[in-house]
Amino acid sequence: MDAFTDRLVARAAAIEPVLEGLLDDLPAFGELERPLRLMAAMRHAVLGGGKRLRPFLVVEAAALFGREDEGVLRAAAAIELLHCYSLVHDDLPAMDDDDLRRGRPTVHKAYDEATAILAGDALLTLAFDVLADPATDADPAVRAALVLGLARASGPGGMVGGQMLDLEAESVPPAEAGVRTLQAMKTGALLRFSVEAGAILGGAPAEARRALLHYGAATGAAFQLADDLLDATATAAETGKRTGKDAARGKATLVALHGVERSRRMLVALVAQAEAALAPFGPAADTLRQAARFVADRRR
Amino acid sequence: MDAFTDRLVARAAAIEPVLEGLLDDLPAFGELERPLRLMAAMRHAVLGGGKRLRPFLVVEAAALFGREDEGVLRAAAAIELLHCYSLVHDDLPAMDDDDLRRGRPTVHKAYDEATAILAGDALLTLAFDVLADPATDADPAVRAALVLGLARASGPGGMVGGQMLDLEAESVPPAEAGVRTLQAMKTGALLRFSVEAGAILGGAPAEARRALLHYGAATGAAFQLADDLLDATATAAETGKRTGKDAARGKATLVALHGVERSRRMLVALVAQAEAALAPFGPAADTLRQAARFVADRRR
Repeated sequence: MDAFTDRLVARAAAIEPVLEGLLDDLPAFGELERPLRLMAAMRHAVLGGGKRLRPFLVVEAAALFGREDEGVLRAAAAIELLHCYSLVHDDLPAMDDDDLRRGRPTVHKAYDEATAILAGDALLTLAFDVLADPATDADPAVRAALVLGLARASGPGGMVGGQMLDLEAESVPPAEAGVRTLQAMKTGALLRFSVEAGAILGGAPAEARRALLHYGAATGAAFQLADDLLDATATAAETGKRTGKDAARGKATLVALHGVERSRRMLVALVAQAEAALAPFGPAADTLRQAARFVADRRR
Repeated sequence: MDAFTDRLVARAAAIEPVLEGLLDDLPAFGELERPLRLMAAMRHAVLGGGKRLRPFLVVEAAALFGREDEGVLRAAAAIELLHCYSLVHDDLPAMDDDDLRRGRPTVHKAYDEATAILAGDALLTLAFDVLADPATDADPAVRAALVLGLARASGPGGMVGGQMLDLEAESVPPAEAGVRTLQAMKTGALLRFSVEAGAILGGAPAEARRALLHYGAATGAAFQLADDLLDATATAAETGKRTGKDAARGKATLVALHGVERSRRMLVALVAQAEAALAPFGPAADTLRQAARFVADRRR
């Protein structure tokens, strides 16, 4: 492994026990009974796999401003919980109807549909719980800003709205601008917020925050384009999830619109944009530069 | 109508435009496309019906401490958004499989299942957006406390966990203590938090807040017991939703355990508990006293 992959793996290893702690020690039970099946389904959805890319972006962006502590890991874990809820609901029969995720059965396959719906709801709610908890940051203004940012990135004007536009795109394929918009909402918004959350936690000045938002937007677009390329060109064995879905459904993606070769060139341009946005930070931002390249080059 | 019903209707009328505004003017779109079908489904889920009992409790509890402003209405509306998401997901085919809600088609019937899942997710996320928004309270400590309280009340240790225990109770009927626990989580926690949110917004002293939590817990328990009694004794035409479901599924409720007559006496005792908890507030809390009686006596 190269130095970047080592670092990605080490950061993921640091997030794992935080996720485990949050899922073991659910808040507010008091004397109440514990819904053990729900908790097991939540653990199935979150633990045991995943690159933890969003937490990585949170941690690396916060580190740019010298902040590395348990609160950063908690905020990073909250964003991962939210990401995992979105996967659980996307995999449902009424949505993408996927049986396989990260090479394992999806939550509704391992448990049942009702449990998967509730586990997703619980993970989404827990993400906000973690961000609003004083253990994440002593300053309530930081906590409120994190909650508001995550809600905007993942709500009807962000991820969930993008999911809806994506479903509708199967029956009425949008033009290129529509595809870009829905992708910026569906996957871009949460990746961009991951970087922004690091800036909020690190107390970044306004200009640095703006630069990071540009980086996050370009990296998010690169992520989705790489995803669409993998769907078009890789096998399920390589990616750990079903592929070829977009073409089978006639889904409008940039790859469908422009073809594989041109999409690969667009991907290179997005990585260059992401790197350029980091210019103000100099070599301190090298890990984030490598992250943009990693997102574009990944094989799963 | 009596004076209490007038007041309930007037408070609901004040909440309605706030809900409409929040659902019309979704956050974070910027130059992005609007997911119109999702927004329509969210409006279908929230507008046009409902007693707005949770907002009423927020507003009346805040008024005890002299606070009545737009921020209170926004927080009250956020809790209603969250309540409505829970109804949308509960009605899904994999859950209660209900076609009718408030006398109208449920969201998955009026739209489709995928849209209902996403509309629920979007309403849940929007609730936290509204609470974390500076327009709700200028003090970030109040906003963070509201977010944390709502997440605890509605998450795996509250409403969602109670839903899961309730589903499991259909195959393995719990003993009475288990029924009380799951009901306190499933419906009690959010009603109790509605009262607590009013106390947080009103800057209530710790002792007053504790008294209100006792009131909220008793009122929440009364609400669920009245609901189970209606399910056992009323018709769909009277309630606007399907009835007789609990008995048909062999669900363990207090009514199933104790019978209708004894349950009615338990309901009277819960109302007395709720009223007693309000003693420190004197006549200023008369509306909240009437609310506890209303919850127990309602016919739908």
